[in-house]
Amino acid sequence: MLALMQNQPLLISTLITFAERHHGDAEIVSRRVEGDIHRTTYAAVATRARQIANALDGCGLGFGDRVATLAWNGYRHLELYFGISGSGRVLHTINPRLHPEQIAWITQHAEDRVLCFDANFLPLIQAIHSKCPTVRHWVMLCDADKLPADSGIPGLLSYEAWIAASAVYDWPEFDENTASSMCYTSGTTGDPKAALYSHRSTTLHAYAAALPDAMNLSARDAVLPVVPMFHVNAWGIPYSAALTGCKLVFPGPALDGKSVYELIESEQVTFAAGVPTVWQMLLGHMLPAGLRFSTLQRTVIGGAACPPAMVKAFQQDFGVEVIHAWGMTEMSPLGTLCTLKNKHLLLPKEQQLAMRLKQGRAVYGVDMKIVSEDGQALPHDGVAAGDLLVKGPWIVADYYKSADPSPLVDGWFPTGDVATIDADGYLQITDRSKDVIKSGGEWISSIAVENIAMAHPAVAIAACIGVKHPKWDERPIVVVVKKPGAVLEAAELLQFYQGKIAKWQVPDDVVFVDAIPLGATGKMQKMRLRQMLAGYQLPGCTEVRS
Amino acid sequence: MLALMQNQPLLISTLITFAERHHGDAEIVSRRVEGDIHRTTYAAVATRARQIANALDGCGLGFGDRVATLAWNGYRHLELYFGISGSGRVLHTINPRLHPEQIAWITQHAEDRVLCFDANFLPLIQAIHSKCPTVRHWVMLCDADKLPADSGIPGLLSYEAWIAASAVYDWPEFDENTASSMCYTSGTTGDPKAALYSHRSTTLHAYAAALPDAMNLSARDAVLPVVPMFHVNAWGIPYSAALTGCKLVFPGPALDGKSVYELIESEQVTFAAGVPTVWQMLLGHMLPAGLRFSTLQRTVIGGAACPPAMVKAFQQDFGVEVIHAWGMTEMSPLGTLCTLKNKHLLLPKEQQLAMRLKQGRAVYGVDMKIVSEDGQALPHDGVAAGDLLVKGPWIVADYYKSADPSPLVDGWFPTGDVATIDADGYLQITDRSKDVIKSGGEWISSIAVENIAMAHPAVAIAACIGVKHPKWDERPIVVVVKKPGAVLEAAELLQFYQGKIAKWQVPDDVVFVDAIPLGATGKMQKMRLRQMLAGYQLPGCTEVRS
Repeated sequence: MLALMQNQPLLISTLITFAERHHGDAEIVSRRVEGDIHRTTYAAVATRARQIANALDGCGLGFGDRVATLAWNGYRHLELYFGISGSGRVLHTINPRLHPEQIAWITQHAEDRVLCFDANFLPLIQAIHSKCPTVRHWVMLCDADKLPADSGIPGLLSYEAWIAASAVYDWPEFDENTASSMCYTSGTTGDPKAALYSHRSTTLHAYAAALPDAMNLSARDAVLPVVPMFHVNAWGIPYSAALTGCKLVFPGPALDGKSVYELIESEQVTFAAGVPTVWQMLLGHMLPAGLRFSTLQRTVIGGAACPPAMVKAFQQDFGVEVIHAWGMTEMSPLGTLCTLKNKHLLLPKEQQLAMRLKQGRAVYGVDMKIVSEDGQALPHDGVAAGDLLVKGPWIVADYYKSADPSPLVDGWFPTGDVATIDADGYLQITDRSKDVIKSGGEWISSIAVENIAMAHPAVAIAACIGVKHPKWDERPIVVVVKKPGAVLEAAELLQFYQGKIAKWQVPDDVVFVDAIPLGATGKMQKMRLRQMLAGYQLPGCTEVRS
Repeated sequence: MLALMQNQPLLISTLITFAERHHGDAEIVSRRVEGDIHRTTYAAVATRARQIANALDGCGLGFGDRVATLAWNGYRHLELYFGISGSGRVLHTINPRLHPEQIAWITQHAEDRVLCFDANFLPLIQAIHSKCPTVRHWVMLCDADKLPADSGIPGLLSYEAWIAASAVYDWPEFDENTASSMCYTSGTTGDPKAALYSHRSTTLHAYAAALPDAMNLSARDAVLPVVPMFHVNAWGIPYSAALTGCKLVFPGPALDGKSVYELIESEQVTFAAGVPTVWQMLLGHMLPAGLRFSTLQRTVIGGAACPPAMVKAFQQDFGVEVIHAWGMTEMSPLGTLCTLKNKHLLLPKEQQLAMRLKQGRAVYGVDMKIVSEDGQALPHDGVAAGDLLVKGPWIVADYYKSADPSPLVDGWFPTGDVATIDADGYLQITDRSKDVIKSGGEWISSIAVENIAMAHPAVAIAACIGVKHPKWDERPIVVVVKKPGAVLEAAELLQFYQGKIAKWQVPDDVVFVDAIPLGATGKMQKMRLRQMLAGYQLPGCTEVRS
């Protein structure tokens, strides 16, 4: 028997309409590419989103056509989020840190019709525009009078002139399973693959992300997404922000510690979200100067495992709650967040801190399981580590235009992570399955080995990889970048591991390097690191690593 | 273009599965009909919900068949919520305060196949069971040895014996628009009408109700739903509780101030929800004894307008945040909740208190508008009052088995309330449209007149109704029940209105009565009150009210 409730599809346009009606005067503050601070409101963003919809109609774009953005976090990017998806087109956010060739390839694969870019990406666009045959309209996010006279890009439009159309527009109503946005994974092997999100998945994710046990967003918050809007839709914050009516603060391209700190203080930010490297820069600016936060209450740290020292600094030195999070492009991205349960509040501070180092527990909407190599479900006891699989309405079923079969295994998406889950549902990622080190039939977590190294005061960054070993199959070594001016010998660091980890898990060697290769989203690229160390040989072991 | 996300329907079974996996040991505490305190967990509730599903299979119940409950708030009722809906049957919660004839009528209209009831309702069931021809199985919520030998009810089952079946059961997957539960409105005129909720509407409502700007539920909360589970599913709390893994505390039938207070203290309740009359009893118990709350942080008050004195007592005397809420059976029920925005936190305490008297702002998922008598949209300026209409995925489109056309007007549900909405989206209900008093072409809010009377220390309860007037069409009078032992003259109360309301809005008379008729959900029944006062004549006005 079907129920008798209203048939209202979950559409992204209803998010901005809600913010416009109920939080019309709530502020959207942006540091612009130009360097100045710009202030607007949800009401104005909603108006301009409707103008974008009319501009896209004017360009002859059809329902489902792709519109790309190459932009930092700012109000114009927010307007594009709602104008593109709300009118039934697909928002394609491109990571500007990708190689130019890869960006051109992606625009072709996505068949982007329009590409909107921040002014400081003009040289990049000039370099690639001839390699993007599907793009018919190039829009620079600037005033009409800022448009260069001779850009070399045929028909280049200024955003402000382009959207100066009518703001009269009725958001269309359509199937909530319609594609709303897409994001290409950084894929360390092969061509990038795109997750294709729906209005339904985005809206459900927006509810879940705002929950008290997730980001805890309300109309009393001022939210700073340092995580870029080209990185899995800034973890969905733009949508959850409209759903809650919180103030939004956008950092633009200025992600250095000083700029981020000043923005947090001047805009009275209560909540910030970003990857560990950004917070490393922020703490690097604050600690030497003895600076304090006056309004910041909590921060979500994700995208990579958060070093214990960082959790401790935020939580104990600054009184800012650290919410460790884990997700994937294929998961919209939220999977788990580490907020404590009532019973944990009774634990001693040190034990609470240890809890916070885990990746956290699933929000309702995400189902998780860990399985052994032969696919058998493993217990949730915090000890058994296995391949992590996930299921839920905001997790991909397939990749866009993929020739491969669906990645799902019995309806579950294999994350490629290896993890434990404890009896309270807390996930701990122990490795990427391709990075796990198999030594003597046992698994060694490369992340656990790295975290110890990074807790050493002389270490800036550390990566643990496995190298072939005649007896043990593989053995871990740790590759280290020292802090500027720091002095550290291999023996001292190896000694530092004693008592922190089982003896057989202690790395066999330390290799000092000047830099560890990072990908476009700031993650360590261990495949490239392994290539760099192709000729490396373990001490006391004559076999050369293949 | 359709997206490529997983096709996971929103089903109620996934809520209890989530709680079982991630919050298996979180407590469910119940004061039972027997008077004792019972403790269980989400894991055990999930197991027993599966046993219920098997028991329903054993009874030969088909998909979509209705299963009724006549029960107080407790763990068995919670198990039934998930076992009945999760297995694809429809949970029909019956309000035991309805007239027995009406209960019998409702079971026939719903075509209930099974009826589960608390032991203390046995006399009621004995009185009506022969008038419920569709009910094939009667289940008393008790142990097998508590079943009366000669109940007079053929084949009466004990709940514990009935569910002693296997706990092995796979929750079925089906269309999320399938009916999950139903609730009959108390309808002051004509037969009761039923809202028929879906798995989708219930799940979306569960997300929204848990948001920080709604009930703000997390795994750190201990939640006491005093609002009955037969009253619009206890405002959806059982579902939001499973979604967040909070501790649940059920009061059973003991809703007196002493019992509720003791439960709040002994179970360290952080959040409670109920109608004003329950909180009146609670404060009536606490104030004379000088009692304090040691853990309670916030309370949602809804179901009827909350008297200002009560908001003030909770907020200022006890430091408990009052969240005024408004909704309807037809809205699952949440429409608005009164949580403040960031800018309101800067206001003086008195102005914040005034804000909290409004019914609040819509949660995302509910759209509201107010219209004039000719259907024109009115401004959201906090002044213009009009008929309130609502729209959204958890609002009814029609009533179950209704012969009437859909109540929707251009896709909007007419609430029957008259309200203002201010520029920040805050709703203020000024009246039921049928209770509004039209005097000299202007509207007088009966609620505003009542609230002033109820702020007088000698007044226990007050109702304002309109009486016919030869010149002004209608004039307000206030009908008052004095507090026990209190002395109050009409002139003194009328004097009390001076300066608090416009002169022409001050009631023309005060009528003292011993009691004001209340309906099954505790609301004042003004239609019956008007009947009681049928021969009443305004002072100085010779025309008898028709």
